[in-house]
Amino acid sequence: MSSAINATHDPNLRSWVESANQPNTDFPIQNLPLGVFHRRNSTEYPRLGVAIGDQILDLLQCHERGLLEGLPEDLQAACVDSNLNALMALGNLAASVLRQRLSELLRSPQQDASMNPNLLLPMSEAEMLLPAAIADYTDFYASIFHATNVGKLFRPDNPLLPNYKYVPIAYHGRASSIMVSGTNIKRPNGQRKPPEATAPSFGPSQMLDYELEIGAFIGVGNELGEAIAIDQAEDYLFGLCLVNDWSARDIQAWEYQPLGPFLAKNFATTISPWVVTTEALAPFRCPAFQRAAGDPEPLPYLSSERDRQQGGIAITVEVSLCSAQMREAGIAPLRLSQGSFQQMYWTLAQMLTHHASNGCNLRPADLLASGTISGAEPGSQGCLLEITQRGSQPIELPTGEQRSFLVDGDEVILRGYCEKSGYARIGFGNCQGRVTG
Amino acid sequence: MSSAINATHDPNLRSWVESANQPNTDFPIQNLPLGVFHRRNSTEYPRLGVAIGDQILDLLQCHERGLLEGLPEDLQAACVDSNLNALMALGNLAASVLRQRLSELLRSPQQDASMNPNLLLPMSEAEMLLPAAIADYTDFYASIFHATNVGKLFRPDNPLLPNYKYVPIAYHGRASSIMVSGTNIKRPNGQRKPPEATAPSFGPSQMLDYELEIGAFIGVGNELGEAIAIDQAEDYLFGLCLVNDWSARDIQAWEYQPLGPFLAKNFATTISPWVVTTEALAPFRCPAFQRAAGDPEPLPYLSSERDRQQGGIAITVEVSLCSAQMREAGIAPLRLSQGSFQQMYWTLAQMLTHHASNGCNLRPADLLASGTISGAEPGSQGCLLEITQRGSQPIELPTGEQRSFLVDGDEVILRGYCEKSGYARIGFGNCQGRVTG
Repeated sequence: MSSAINATHDPNLRSWVESANQPNTDFPIQNLPLGVFHRRNSTEYPRLGVAIGDQILDLLQCHERGLLEGLPEDLQAACVDSNLNALMALGNLAASVLRQRLSELLRSPQQDASMNPNLLLPMSEAEMLLPAAIADYTDFYASIFHATNVGKLFRPDNPLLPNYKYVPIAYHGRASSIMVSGTNIKRPNGQRKPPEATAPSFGPSQMLDYELEIGAFIGVGNELGEAIAIDQAEDYLFGLCLVNDWSARDIQAWEYQPLGPFLAKNFATTISPWVVTTEALAPFRCPAFQRAAGDPEPLPYLSSERDRQQGGIAITVEVSLCSAQMREAGIAPLRLSQGSFQQMYWTLAQMLTHHASNGCNLRPADLLASGTISGAEPGSQGCLLEITQRGSQPIELPTGEQRSFLVDGDEVILRGYCEKSGYARIGFGNCQGRVTG
Repeated sequence: MSSAINATHDPNLRSWVESANQPNTDFPIQNLPLGVFHRRNSTEYPRLGVAIGDQILDLLQCHERGLLEGLPEDLQAACVDSNLNALMALGNLAASVLRQRLSELLRSPQQDASMNPNLLLPMSEAEMLLPAAIADYTDFYASIFHATNVGKLFRPDNPLLPNYKYVPIAYHGRASSIMVSGTNIKRPNGQRKPPEATAPSFGPSQMLDYELEIGAFIGVGNELGEAIAIDQAEDYLFGLCLVNDWSARDIQAWEYQPLGPFLAKNFATTISPWVVTTEALAPFRCPAFQRAAGDPEPLPYLSSERDRQQGGIAITVEVSLCSAQMREAGIAPLRLSQGSFQQMYWTLAQMLTHHASNGCNLRPADLLASGTISGAEPGSQGCLLEITQRGSQPIELPTGEQRSFLVDGDEVILRGYCEKSGYARIGFGNCQGRVTG
């Protein structure tokens, strides 16, 4: 299911890129996440890159200097494309072959004399682009804590619906408005109807929120009409990123029945630029979430011993906020929450298997997001709706400002990382966006 | 808003393609819908075509013979592409220029001696392909009769939700499983929980249904963050097709709360292969649906005098069914319903303006579907769920078979056409699909 732990995970590996050897980097040589970039303020064609410390290894340059020689032709071709789609379509075995080569190229001492710093661009000089052309985007709802907390606010009498423990609930999101970290978020207009109003009005959302999620990119796809067995599901998962599913709660509350969220979500979704491959995450696999006594077992098509044992991934996720006043005063972003992807009621394999269980075809670079990651503990809720109890319990920022929902100028920063004794830290980098009026 | 009526609509125009002059053809010279095809059982590259009578005019051949000379370069380039995306992106003025040229080329007597039957392929020898690469697909819910009828079945106490008369309700659908007319529909598996069951089970849907809809392709798109004013909305609509939004009602009933339909819909959506341009439909514009006394006015962003006067389109739509037994016995398909697109509570312009009102970006070849077209009269309901009252009142076929929902072997055929005294009939062709086990 998950890629095995191998020599590329060896914690003793060091890179000749010195910044990759710092203990707190997100991007040690054991990570090697893939992205798309070009030099900032240039007309350079977008190209693939690998994050290594605070640098980006340019795969187009690597190819031109013959450093990818010997790899399969289609893999080399995918490495000089302008997005990750072709590479994703080749599947995880190809990704693993590439990872092995990249690990060798970046390893210290240098194996190849033609490897040199000119192949690198400092991240500070790069503009990151969307890693892939995402055709279909699906958003799940896989945290039972989030579903219960939100349910209490929208349906106090009926917080968790009867289907929740059987169905990995999801809806289709908007692909066109997925943007890469760093893009500003324009506050959306929409219809809002406060309970006391007799009719809705149209104007800027007053309840703008973030949602902290993990996204999974599809590698190889399935044919229309072909389901995917739970034990094969991870073969279809290429890699993961962070997702901020920006949400306008006032628009959502008024529009969402009976067909689900639409304009409350489709104005913007931010993803982190680096795709962390499933292979890089292999050391951090863990058991699936333990269902409470009395909870039903998943139906057989969503159930396997392997998934129970290894279907989880121990990723720590965090949200921080920085207001305009905080930025001006030089105050660091305030951490609002910290949670774990281990707390999700459904595994990624269950989400993917459910998605294809009716024959729906998934294509390379489709994105499946997990839904808001919230835990049971205070301080582990992945959106303001939960943290402030729909705005009724505002939080206080270091400047004394209060926040029920996001205010223009607020910047939201998601982070994610895996840490485990005996292994290098694997990070996701930042997923951030600033709200504008 | 709508393209004006001009010389290409002249009912006295005749084509040198004789079949286009038959009074009941869907494709007279006044229609000129666009599609993508290649010769059946060939390795021919897909190319653009124009339906004319029972023939297809090959635009690639037209270009090679110089028949598109003098048209703008980008328009000529779009005409030799392998789908309609580039042409749609050029917008309605370009489409109008092309329409004018096509009308001249196909007009009788022949204007151009190099025009000849070798430019045509009989439809019977062509395989139609998807007309465009559809990036995002949105499905509306714009018939108040459908919403009320379905609401009665799912929520007897609360059939029409309070937001319906304010919000053009919609959800995002699945782009990957949109297929062209003629593709078989594999019955989906899924979770179903009949009311009497204590837990759901997984297996083939027992309540497979069709939904009769009109789809609208986006031409020019808008930038993220830019809304579209109601009076500009039709500039963004390139053309229309028929849509069958296949639906598994048992899966839908169990999964749809709180985030809307997902696996109940995303296993298949069939569209007709010919895109009828908004210009071809100009003679059939009509007032928007007349709201009942006491209904609220649309909010200002969804309201304009032009849209009220001309926002409707008088398209007659029909559904027929042919069972395997009927086919074997040589019995013609049975018409199950006939309705009108005029009966929709929201106009296409209102749907589009609402969609972009939060800044959501629409891209060329995105597809907006109307939702099931049902009218107030008996016999005008656009899905079996309504016609059979969730299966409780089965219909009888000419063979004596009963149908609550679709059975393997059933073929569903959607048709749509505009007829008006003093104008040529404009048809959509067939949108059909056969259910397989």
